[in-house]
Amino acid sequence: MLHKDRLFPADPGTRDLARRLFAEVEKLPIVSPHGHTDPRWWGENPHFSNPADLFVVPDHYVLRMLISQGVSYEALGIGEARERDPRKIWRTFAEHYYLFQGTPSRLWVDHALSEVFGLTERLSPKNADAYYDRIAECLAKPEFRPRELYDRFNIEVIATTDGALDDLHWHQQARDSDWNGRVVPTYRPDAVIDPEAKGFAAALDTLGELTGCDTGIWQGYLDAHRARRSFFREMGATATDHGHPSPRTANLAEAEAAALFARVRSGKLQAGDADLFRAQMLTEMAKMSADDGMVMQLHPGSYRGHNAAVLSRYGADKGFDIPVAVNFTEGLKPLLDSVGMEPDLTLILFTLDETTYSRELAPLAGAYPGLKLGPPWWFHDSYEGIRRFREMATETAGFFNTVGFNDD
Amino acid sequence: MLHKDRLFPADPGTRDLARRLFAEVEKLPIVSPHGHTDPRWWGENPHFSNPADLFVVPDHYVLRMLISQGVSYEALGIGEARERDPRKIWRTFAEHYYLFQGTPSRLWVDHALSEVFGLTERLSPKNADAYYDRIAECLAKPEFRPRELYDRFNIEVIATTDGALDDLHWHQQARDSDWNGRVVPTYRPDAVIDPEAKGFAAALDTLGELTGCDTGIWQGYLDAHRARRSFFREMGATATDHGHPSPRTANLAEAEAAALFARVRSGKLQAGDADLFRAQMLTEMAKMSADDGMVMQLHPGSYRGHNAAVLSRYGADKGFDIPVAVNFTEGLKPLLDSVGMEPDLTLILFTLDETTYSRELAPLAGAYPGLKLGPPWWFHDSYEGIRRFREMATETAGFFNTVGFNDD
Amino acid sequence: MLHKDRLFPADPGTRDLARRLFAEVEKLPIVSPHGHTDPRWWGENPHFSNPADLFVVPDHYVLRMLISQGVSYEALGIGEARERDPRKIWRTFAEHYYLFQGTPSRLWVDHALSEVFGLTERLSPKNADAYYDRIAECLAKPEFRPRELYDRFNIEVIATTDGALDDLHWHQQARDSDWNGRVVPTYRPDAVIDPEAKGFAAALDTLGELTGCDTGIWQGYLDAHRARRSFFREMGATATDHGHPSPRTANLAEAEAAALFARVRSGKLQAGDADLFRAQMLTEMAKMSADDGMVMQLHPGSYRGHNAAVLSRYGADKGFDIPVAVNFTEGLKPLLDSVGMEPDLTLILFTLDETTYSRELAPLAGAYPGLKLGPPWWFHDSYEGIRRFREMATETAGFFNTVGFNDD
Repeated sequence: MLHKDRLFPADPGTRDLARRLFAEVEKLPIVSPHGHTDPRWWGENPHFSNPADLFVVPDHYVLRMLISQGVSYEALGIGEARERDPRKIWRTFAEHYYLFQGTPSRLWVDHALSEVFGLTERLSPKNADAYYDRIAECLAKPEFRPRELYDRFNIEVIATTDGALDDLHWHQQARDSDWNGRVVPTYRPDAVIDPEAKGFAAALDTLGELTGCDTGIWQGYLDAHRARRSFFREMGATATDHGHPSPRTANLAEAEAAALFARVRSGKLQAGDADLFRAQMLTEMAKMSADDGMVMQLHPGSYRGHNAAVLSRYGADKGFDIPVAVNFTEGLKPLLDSVGMEPDLTLILFTLDETTYSRELAPLAGAYPGLKLGPPWWFHDSYEGIRRFREMATETAGFFNTVGFNDD
Repeated sequence: MLHKDRLFPADPGTRDLARRLFAEVEKLPIVSPHGHTDPRWWGENPHFSNPADLFVVPDHYVLRMLISQGVSYEALGIGEARERDPRKIWRTFAEHYYLFQGTPSRLWVDHALSEVFGLTERLSPKNADAYYDRIAECLAKPEFRPRELYDRFNIEVIATTDGALDDLHWHQQARDSDWNGRVVPTYRPDAVIDPEAKGFAAALDTLGELTGCDTGIWQGYLDAHRARRSFFREMGATATDHGHPSPRTANLAEAEAAALFARVRSGKLQAGDADLFRAQMLTEMAKMSADDGMVMQLHPGSYRGHNAAVLSRYGADKGFDIPVAVNFTEGLKPLLDSVGMEPDLTLILFTLDETTYSRELAPLAGAYPGLKLGPPWWFHDSYEGIRRFREMATETAGFFNTVGFNDD
Repeated sequence: MLHKDRLFPADPGTRDLARRLFAEVEKLPIVSPHGHTDPRWWGENPHFSNPADLFVVPDHYVLRMLISQGVSYEALGIGEARERDPRKIWRTFAEHYYLFQGTPSRLWVDHALSEVFGLTERLSPKNADAYYDRIAECLAKPEFRPRELYDRFNIEVIATTDGALDDLHWHQQARDSDWNGRVVPTYRPDAVIDPEAKGFAAALDTLGELTGCDTGIWQGYLDAHRARRSFFREMGATATDHGHPSPRTANLAEAEAAALFARVRSGKLQAGDADLFRAQMLTEMAKMSADDGMVMQLHPGSYRGHNAAVLSRYGADKGFDIPVAVNFTEGLKPLLDSVGMEPDLTLILFTLDETTYSRELAPLAGAYPGLKLGPPWWFHDSYEGIRRFREMATETAGFFNTVGFNDD
């Protein structure tokens, strides 16, 4: 099922070169600085429950493809009237597995089935039940628990993504255990930065309680961020992460920013305030990163929850986040005028708009000491996507203004 | 003139694979669901008049290239003082045929000359007259008439594109004949949807007369569309087609839509009304498609008649339609919130803005059950264009959210 | 260090074809119609001063990469407290030369070191001093002066880029000499066209003095342009060049344009006036080109001096010019409605926004007789950039609507 030269060039000369390069890196440990594994995996080391909950239900790449071809969320274990038998969900997946031809999802699933579970024939309705049984049997064994897989996969360090209000107790539990894996949290403060996020006001109240800072005023609010960043660093964090609708930034004068915060805090927003506040906060986060050394990651340009009915019925992260065009050159200027030349800032830019690779991102990262380019993200974390990134970014940014691997 | 491996990869291994794949599909019948053949061809089965009127005068790809290099419209048989000798037009074409190096037009013309007319040397001033004679001689024979070519080309079905007010009599004539080819119309209502189209008010009067609906009011106007769609379906239509300046859609409340229609109908448009009405009508057409099952095709983003002088002197479709950037993610949201999750909708999206393939179209079609991606369109219906489409769309949309061949 | 097949395809069949094609053009003379060599080189034929001033200090590609990795401008010989020892600057360059892996800068420098100076091992800290000595020794020899290199490189003609107010005395000196090289100036009037350029009012005063035209009024100002263009033509110029923030054009009625000029001339600009004036002047320049036959080159879409601190401390052209998205289809329409169909206009379009190649530029150049496409510019003047240009533009524009080589 897995061709040993998959993803390598077809031409024998370059294929041979690719084999030799791959052999040099194949056994290196995995350093995974950004991802979305569940911290509970590392703190509690539970058994994964069943094949459907591992491969299907939580994977928004898998969900969206099945939904796009007429499968219902319910049949995939989501929604009030959802299918509750994981074996039936697995069968639905197997029945539609042909849909993934030519997609990274098939590469990933084929790889996992083959390399992790020893299932070397492609998933199909014919073998669905047998595969379900085999995987379920594996998952019941200790060596298929998260920590054991971490060791088996030769991971050196893995980062999770954690809300600003998170107490990081799973991280604490992992550190308190006798396991030697290195799992670090990442400061993701979107819920206390985006005035349009659900429960924003209450979140700021909690932020104040957790830190003892007065989150009723601008400086107190910034101090509260500093306090949480410090707590995250104590728990091993080296980075922050920010998901914004656009890469727009702002750098308002102190009084203006304080007045904007007052409006945002009171919920009495004027038109444009929410967007301006998010823009201002990117610059504030960059300033703090220049101070405390936390690497800042920016993931902009996704129109989240694009379909109103899906969002209200099934919730967020259900496959309906759709990219939009973005403008880094003009958007980032206020932030970069403020701290872009700081030697201690590292701001890693990600994009879903590939046109920005050669037009904006490589020229920006190829000039500003504070900028680096993240690897291809989300839809573009794929064979063709990685090729396009390298073809469009390397000549201008070089290799040293880009960063490595992600398990996003 | 035609290399048997043209368009195949140069590397022997993948070339061999390409040959084997091509051999499997080469003899399959042609299913052509969208195109612009003249219905009269199928109804009357006339002889094509002469080589210039077949290959040069009506082909806006050929025209624009010749115009771009200084040939006049008149020399190509267009305009008041036009050349009326088709042989002279053909010679002008032959004289400038070197301009088409590297373009799909040359692939098409070389293919037609060689495969249809047995002319295997490349067209040039030297052979222009002999070629003209040979083609003219062929065109006079019965086996070079449209229906005979349909059979020779192994076409299974072909769709034309027809105005909403068309009586489809050529289609009727084809059905009434003893010929067994399948030619179906397509409902293209732009002229009764675009308030800026010439003769819009009169067209709506006619629409009312044809259907017996009151096209003076919003609901009557919608009913008239339903009636014409029904008539087209009776005549074999399976699809509608829409050429809009942008993919913007709207989903106004009933009263708002009725008021907008009233302004549009009376010709007393406010700023933005024409665009908003087109946007609203895309959603209405999608709703009707979800009801009556007609596949909806959207061809947006061409700035039609870009040069004012060319447009006024020589008319539409003369090679001066230039693409613009489009925004599907935000533009389609109102339509998709309305009917995007309907299992009975099939909306096929085309684009002239290739940046939307990976950024917007593949993510949208890879999520919404109602969406599919059309093949590369117009300028991008080419070797490199098709390759880019597959490289940029397949990993996210898969193969099953895209559709097949067009003779556009 | 230089692989003889560098930049050729890996597949043996196409590589062989590439070799044969290259052999046919390798010895042809260089025709360089656009570039930024210093006219003094040709007028005075001085020795180049030292390796750092030749390879490092004036090269904004080299500067930006080093700055992006934390090297200071001062260490590169720029700024008040700058390093003044060129050998030390050269060592800094050598120490960081590994950063240029995968970039065109390395191809250029490797090529120059090897082919011009016979230094066939890659530059590194180890050989930095020896290389410095060897290059310095060469530069002291007569055969390494500009005119001798012109002859050695088999250049047939080279164009410089010169301000509208320039007296072109270096060009005169070159013409007066007994050297037979052909060096021609190019009319670059940005400083007397952009109301936001430093010293704009004074520049217009000078323009009036130089030409005897009344640059206080619109028609006098246009006449002054005509006079300077005429002077440039007498000095051998065949072209003009225009660097604008965007490709927006305008074609105002005479009275409107005169009123706009009056505001611009008096410095009492209203919002949008500067942009509108630049837009209007592109059309005026195109009209003059249609009259006097000078080829017009447009280089739009760079956000110049993106970082405020770098701009104010170190000046322009220091690596912080970042591309933005542009809109040629709508931007150029006024100009093209005015003179786009003129047989005597040649307007060459360049872009930093590669998305416009297939979406806008190839369709425009493939229709308008007055338009041609320039080669890939700046960041895109690279292996991958040239490949993308040909893949995205050729099928629609053909080869004959594009132009050749640049030394930009």
